[in-house]
This record gives sequence, structure tokens and C-alpha cells, in this order.
Amino acid sequence: MAVYTTIADDELAAFMSRYDIGQVISLAGIAEGVENSNFLLRTDRNNYILTLYEKRTNAADLPFFMGLMDHLSAHGIHCPAPITDKSGQILQQVAGRPGALFSFLNGVTAHQPNVVKCRQLGGILAQMHQATADFTMKRDNALGPQGWQPLLDSIDDSQTDLPAGLKSEAHAVLQDILADWPEGLPETVIHADLFPNNVMFIGDKLTGVIDFYFACHDITAYDLAICLNSWCFEADGSFNVTKSAALLAGYDAVRPLQSDEIAALPILCRGAAMRFFLTRFYDWINTPKDAFVKPHDPMEYWSKLRFHLRATSAASYGYWS
Amino acid sequence: MAVYTTIADDELAAFMSRYDIGQVISLAGIAEGVENSNFLLRTDRNNYILTLYEKRTNAADLPFFMGLMDHLSAHGIHCPAPITDKSGQILQQVAGRPGALFSFLNGVTAHQPNVVKCRQLGGILAQMHQATADFTMKRDNALGPQGWQPLLDSIDDSQTDLPAGLKSEAHAVLQDILADWPEGLPETVIHADLFPNNVMFIGDKLTGVIDFYFACHDITAYDLAICLNSWCFEADGSFNVTKSAALLAGYDAVRPLQSDEIAALPILCRGAAMRFFLTRFYDWINTPKDAFVKPHDPMEYWSKLRFHLRATSAASYGYWS
Repeated sequence: MAVYTTIADDELAAFMSRYDIGQVISLAGIAEGVENSNFLLRTDRNNYILTLYEKRTNAADLPFFMGLMDHLSAHGIHCPAPITDKSGQILQQVAGRPGALFSFLNGVTAHQPNVVKCRQLGGILAQMHQATADFTMKRDNALGPQGWQPLLDSIDDSQTDLPAGLKSEAHAVLQDILADWPEGLPETVIHADLFPNNVMFIGDKLTGVIDFYFACHDITAYDLAICLNSWCFEADGSFNVTKSAALLAGYDAVRPLQSDEIAALPILCRGAAMRFFLTRFYDWINTPKDAFVKPHDPMEYWSKLRFHLRATSAASYGYWS
Repeated sequence: MAVYTTIADDELAAFMSRYDIGQVISLAGIAEGVENSNFLLRTDRNNYILTLYEKRTNAADLPFFMGLMDHLSAHGIHCPAPITDKSGQILQQVAGRPGALFSFLNGVTAHQPNVVKCRQLGGILAQMHQATADFTMKRDNALGPQGWQPLLDSIDDSQTDLPAGLKSEAHAVLQDILADWPEGLPETVIHADLFPNNVMFIGDKLTGVIDFYFACHDITAYDLAICLNSWCFEADGSFNVTKSAALLAGYDAVRPLQSDEIAALPILCRGAAMRFFLTRFYDWINTPKDAFVKPHDPMEYWSKLRFHLRATSAASYGYWS
């Protein structure tokens, strides 16, 4: 949740003069995302999202993100579509920051996605993977396997309230994951952060996908592993195989999984759990105790990782071919 | 800026089932107000604001606030109108908190209100004062003159970065203000916090007033003094008498000021500046240095107070009768 920047009257007027989108009737900072400032901008013609990029977003990555959302929108994926100004520009300077205007997506994020929603998630994920096949811009995954060991090494757990020995245990598990990490699997642009709070629904109908600011090139099926982690565990930590079966079936119906991708699901799920465990472990220790945004509990993903260590094949996730 | 509480899917569904307002197509937490959590709720029929009251709002005051907004709406004042559920109830329990649904007001708040806006502000303020004449619920002003000395006494300035001697100087000025505080002036319900961020405009046209959570009974013209403080000083601390003249003329045209109210404007302005100086002084010292919401600079209102100490009559504010 955020809105770090406010927009002064004259800055808003200058911004609006660059577009042909009607007169402002409402501007509200909205509490979505912790990385950027987002505003719901209503004009007498339509609803829009105005995003200002705060320091945590690397400005050099913005053309990739804009290009990706534009590409996906053009391929029929419902996501925020960047809107060009009268001169054809997408990126703007607003209140001293890079900013961009996007189409507004109807829908509500699901905190507790059900089986019907999981099936649709699989479908849209496969559509996104297919739609990016001819997207030519590139971005490396800064939080991919190469980054995990340095991230773990950088964590000072000498004064943590987390279980003793967690870091050394994580080190051992990480060695196994990196040793087993698959090679030669299909790669595409992946969303890389498709948690339930980034997918919109009206009732049970999926209406769109948001927040592409972790998108990058990596193993296609790794994106699926991230979703299996974030959509298919219940609040009590149990794994709901009906949900994962629906997610995989929804995906497979659009983009049939290859046999090597299917075989790699357990290791990819371990890697995905490790990636979110590591960033949460780091944030847990490095976030000031009285910060407004509370860090997520890393033990949630440690528990998920332990489930995946016991998974022997894709059948553990309800995939039966 | 806030949104402290999130609404789970089943809680939203339960809430919606109590109303006859259509199907949800969007729910976004918005960054308005620091006291409560506000959500922009869009259905296939209309836009609404859903407010959840956090701990800082006294639940015992909610019936007064709801009643006031309902009363003002019924009298043609554009403000959030509380919406009743199918059984006629306004106050609900949502996510474990008291909450209420309101009509959505178009408009954008003005950070730098101009003369045209100041004139309209005067008009709507007078309309509100007239409209509450037959409103029968009561609420004392917890931040009125009786509260100023105890508030100042409670401030520990031993380790502040503010000018040395500020507290003792404030004490002396406060004694004078309390000694001169007027008696016998007309009293009504006042908004008591009608800063520019609580008034909406489309272009230069005033479209509504929000945030009634400081509303109370007090001296009617004291509300005007609060507006003179918050609308008529420029960013550099200078007083814009063209704006104040427009504000007073806009007010006077709707509800003609009595001679005793006119004469009391300087002392009322001193009191209003003191009230906001004191709460900011307190917050400046008592807000943790790394808090997400930064406290306002109390010296802004100390500087305004010094202007009012030099004002000798209503003519200093551009009121010429």
C-alpha cells in the first residue's frame, strides 16, 4: 500500500494538457503496490490509472514494462494498457518522477481464490506465455537462481527472532536446488509475481492481470511454479491439490506442457518457494520494526518449501497425464 | 493517507448482500485521511465510498457524524451521503470494524486554491451553517479553547528541534487569547477542519465537502477563522487578502455576518491558528521519526498566529462593510 507522491494542481493540469482524454472529475491516490504511487483518475470520458514510479523502480526498466503491457494488451490479454499522449509518448515526468497513464481494469482481487479462479488463472498465464513469444525486448531476472546464494549470504541472522539454524538449513537446501535446477526448458517472458493480489475478478470471472514490474525472461514453467506456491496453499499451510490440478489443467488446455516441463515441476516449485522465502527472510531482518509496511512472514514460504521437498513428481500437484 | 484494514472476499460478499446497489466491479483502497480506511467501491450501478473506522475514531461519535452528513445531504449540501442497507441501517460491521457506505463525490481537492475557489468556499460554509440550524444532535469540540492549555501543558519540549522558548512563548500568547476569547457569539455545528484537502472542485467549480470527523458545536464564525488560516496564506507564508476578502464576501452573501462576529475575526483567527499550532506541536514531538505519516510543521501555524496578532480588525482580512 502506498501513495508516496502528491500531485499539485498545476502539475495535474500540465499532465492533462498533454492528453486528449477529457476533463478530470476525480483523482484519488489508491493503496495498490508498495513500489509506486498509483492514482485512480476519472475523466468525463473514462477511468484511468496514473502511476508514478518511485525510487525502488529502476527507470531503465520502464521501457520494457511499458512495451510488455502494450504488447499483451494488443494480444487481447486484459492488463493495464499504456496510453500515449498527443505526441505518441507513453513515459512522462509528473511531480518530478517518471510516470505513465494506463487503462483502468475492472475487477476485485481475490484474497482466497477458489478452484474456479485457479483454473482461469492457469488459462490466462498460458495465454500470456504464448502472447510474449514474439515480444522482442529483454530483461534478466534479477531474482533468478543466480541471485539466490548472494541474497542468502547477505542476510545477517545474528539477532533474528526466527528459528536458530534457519540460515544454515536454507543454505543446504539451496545447494540441492541449484544442483538440480533444470536446463533446456522453454523460456519466455514470465510475470514472475502472479500472486492473487495481482489478478482481478468480477464474481468468479477473471477480468485482468496487473503489476508487471517483476516481469523478465526466465523458464516458462517457473511462472507456473510461482502460481502453485501463491494460489494453492490454504491459510493453515495445507496444500489444496484440487486447486493445483485446476490451475495446471487450465494452463495445459491453452499451452500443453511438455514432458520435461511436467517432470521439472517439483524442482521449479522448490526454487519458487526458495525465491520468496529468501526475499522475505531478507526483508524480515532488514525492515525497521516500526515501518508502516509490515514484512511478510518468511516461515510461510519455508513451510511451502518443505512441502515441495516431499513432492516426487507432477502427480503431487494433481497433474495426471 | 491510509488504508489500514483489508476486506476479505467473504466479508465483502456479506457486506454487499445487505445492500441493493448492484454487483461489485471494482474495490480500491484509497489514500484519503489518516484516521480511517477508505475504499472506492464501484458497482455496475454507481460509485460509492466505503469507510471503515479505525481506532482513532470514537465509535460513540459515529451516529453524530452519520446524522450530520445525512442532514446536510438532505439540505442540498454536496457531501458524502450515508447509504442505508435493506433494513434501513447505516452503520455496519466490516472486517471487525464499524463501517458505512457513502455516495461518491466527483471532484479533485485543490492544493493551491485561487480567489474564485475561496469565494465559493465562503458560500458553501455559510450554507452548511444555515443547514445545521435545525440539526438536533450535539457534539462538544474536544479541540476547542478549553482543551488548548491542557494540550500545551502535555507537550514535553525538552528534546525538540524546534526553537528554544517556543513552549513558554506559546503559553503567554495562549493566555492572551483565552482572556480575549469572545462570548455570546452565534453557535452552530461547525466543520472545524475545512482545509483545502477537504473541498472538491471540478475546474474552478466547487462540487462538494468531505471529512466531517472533527465536526462539533462551537462558535459559527470560528469555522470561518479556520478557513481564513488554511485557505488564504501563500506557500511563502504571506497572507493573500484578495483571497480572504473573496472568502468573507462569499460567506456574507449567503449568511450576513453580525457586527459582533465581524469584530471578533482577529481573535477567532488567533484561536484557530493556536489550535492547529498546538496539535502540530504535539504531533511533531510525539510522532516517531520514522513514521510513515510525517507530521506537519507547527511553525507554519506559529507564523500564521504572528500575522493574526498584528491584525487589528476585520479590515485586516479584507472585510469592509
